[in-house]
Amino acid sequence: MKKAKTTRFGVSMDADLLKEFDQLILGKGYANRSEAFRDLVRGHMVEKAWEKASSEVVGTVTLVYNHHAHDLADKLTDIQHHHCKTIISTTHIHLDEHNCLEVLILKGKSGDVKSIAERLISTKGVKHGKLAMTSTGKELR
Amino acid sequence: MKKAKTTRFGVSMDADLLKEFDQLILGKGYANRSEAFRDLVRGHMVEKAWEKASSEVVGTVTLVYNHHAHDLADKLTDIQHHHCKTIISTTHIHLDEHNCLEVLILKGKSGDVKSIAERLISTKGVKHGKLAMTSTGKELR
Amino acid sequence: MKKAKTTRFGVSMDADLLKEFDQLILGKGYANRSEAFRDLVRGHMVEKAWEKASSEVVGTVTLVYNHHAHDLADKLTDIQHHHCKTIISTTHIHLDEHNCLEVLILKGKSGDVKSIAERLISTKGVKHGKLAMTSTGKELR
Amino acid sequence: MKKAKTTRFGVSMDADLLKEFDQLILGKGYANRSEAFRDLVRGHMVEKAWEKASSEVVGTVTLVYNHHAHDLADKLTDIQHHHCKTIISTTHIHLDEHNCLEVLILKGKSGDVKSIAERLISTKGVKHGKLAMTSTGKELR
Repeated sequence: MKKAKTTRFGVSMDADLLKEFDQLILGKGYANRSEAFRDLVRGHMVEKAWEKASSEVVGTVTLVYNHHAHDLADKLTDIQHHHCKTIISTTHIHLDEHNCLEVLILKGKSGDVKSIAERLISTKGVKHGKLAMTSTGKELR
Repeated sequence: MKKAKTTRFGVSMDADLLKEFDQLILGKGYANRSEAFRDLVRGHMVEKAWEKASSEVVGTVTLVYNHHAHDLADKLTDIQHHHCKTIISTTHIHLDEHNCLEVLILKGKSGDVKSIAERLISTKGVKHGKLAMTSTGKELR
Repeated sequence: MKKAKTTRFGVSMDADLLKEFDQLILGKGYANRSEAFRDLVRGHMVEKAWEKASSEVVGTVTLVYNHHAHDLADKLTDIQHHHCKTIISTTHIHLDEHNCLEVLILKGKSGDVKSIAERLISTKGVKHGKLAMTSTGKELR
Repeated sequence: MKKAKTTRFGVSMDADLLKEFDQLILGKGYANRSEAFRDLVRGHMVEKAWEKASSEVVGTVTLVYNHHAHDLADKLTDIQHHHCKTIISTTHIHLDEHNCLEVLILKGKSGDVKSIAERLISTKGVKHGKLAMTSTGKELR
């Protein structure tokens, strides 16, 4: 990674609009306006990266399922082993007597990460699944 | 509307990140960076306004339907007349021999606009419907 | 358009889950469950069509702007004339003394419709813009 | 949890539309149509639950950050300890020499989970953050 170089530039905006924006980001916990703008910009960059199937990305898949469902845990493990090069880690939480949460961290080409996520989420017995699309951090500063 | 007062402030950002953002917005047609940032900020404000059911907003509803569907045109007209105070105008396009497009412009409380949109979109025979949430422009500068 | 042929199939679902879903769609105005499921399916199909830049689609662009902004109305008209083959119609509403709403209906390749929408929304002085992505209705039944 | 009771009901749909939907869900890995419809329905229920700030939900927060950033790891740990009753677990991945991934699993009222997520994501030095909204699984069958 080459050394990051920070630049400073001016933005002109209506004073009232800016005031409202400042209140909104304060409520979310931002220490200053620059950080909020950087987050808006970085969010756009991550979205753009995921549009190209060959971009290297990171994603997390969250699954909720009933571990009593026939063969389900085995099936999910099978799929995961089949993609062990892309799946970095899996965390399992026993939500209650019946329900499990599994959170997988994946790193690879965005096309592959999406397809593994779809395969897991569509498995019979998985009650709910979500793919969170993020970044390797390399291109984001 | 009180007179708009423009202010100028500085944002610090990584130089490479900013370069990538500049390319992205150039591709979308933005003349300069400030306008792109203003759009990001105004987009947030409009979203926030719609979260409160009592905010005064503007929305457009786009409907695609088959005008041969039994009674459908009549039903849609009935619903629209029932809400004539909120619906400002309707534009109708004959897409082909069978398919119609209708675009309604609504102004009112966000809760009412949403509920009228849902009522129209859920009508049997409407093939596809979309609500675009925008603003009266009063709070946006 | 070839004659539509309706088919009927069974879906098995947990009784309580179905009950909750029925309440949700009733609140939105659906007359029956089949119509709600058809809308879910058609919504997916429209999304998929827009993913391919060459699909023929329909879209509506909603713009809010201040007509006092220097040259803005002229600029927007110029862009629209430049794309007159794709833009079917434009409706203009005088929201108040300052603010205008313009709703354009476009039909063409999804890549072109998106790019015209971005060009209009990014124009300096446009306070807010939204593209609603819908369908020519041909592939939807 | 009371015993789940499965019910079966009929849906009527255009034959061609259904054929296209079947192809779409096959590509995603669904073994059958009922499972795809159940996922659509459960997805709606989870969205609805998150709209009410007092619903008990589960969420995962994914953070990407540079561990060299001054004090950042300490700040993130502080925030997490402050909300230790809601945060069930944290998994940490060393993405490369500079970039870290942290995935937190939270369980609590949706308003609290959202607010903790915003607080973490807005922290200076966090490059990208995402909240994935899911469920305790109790209400989903």
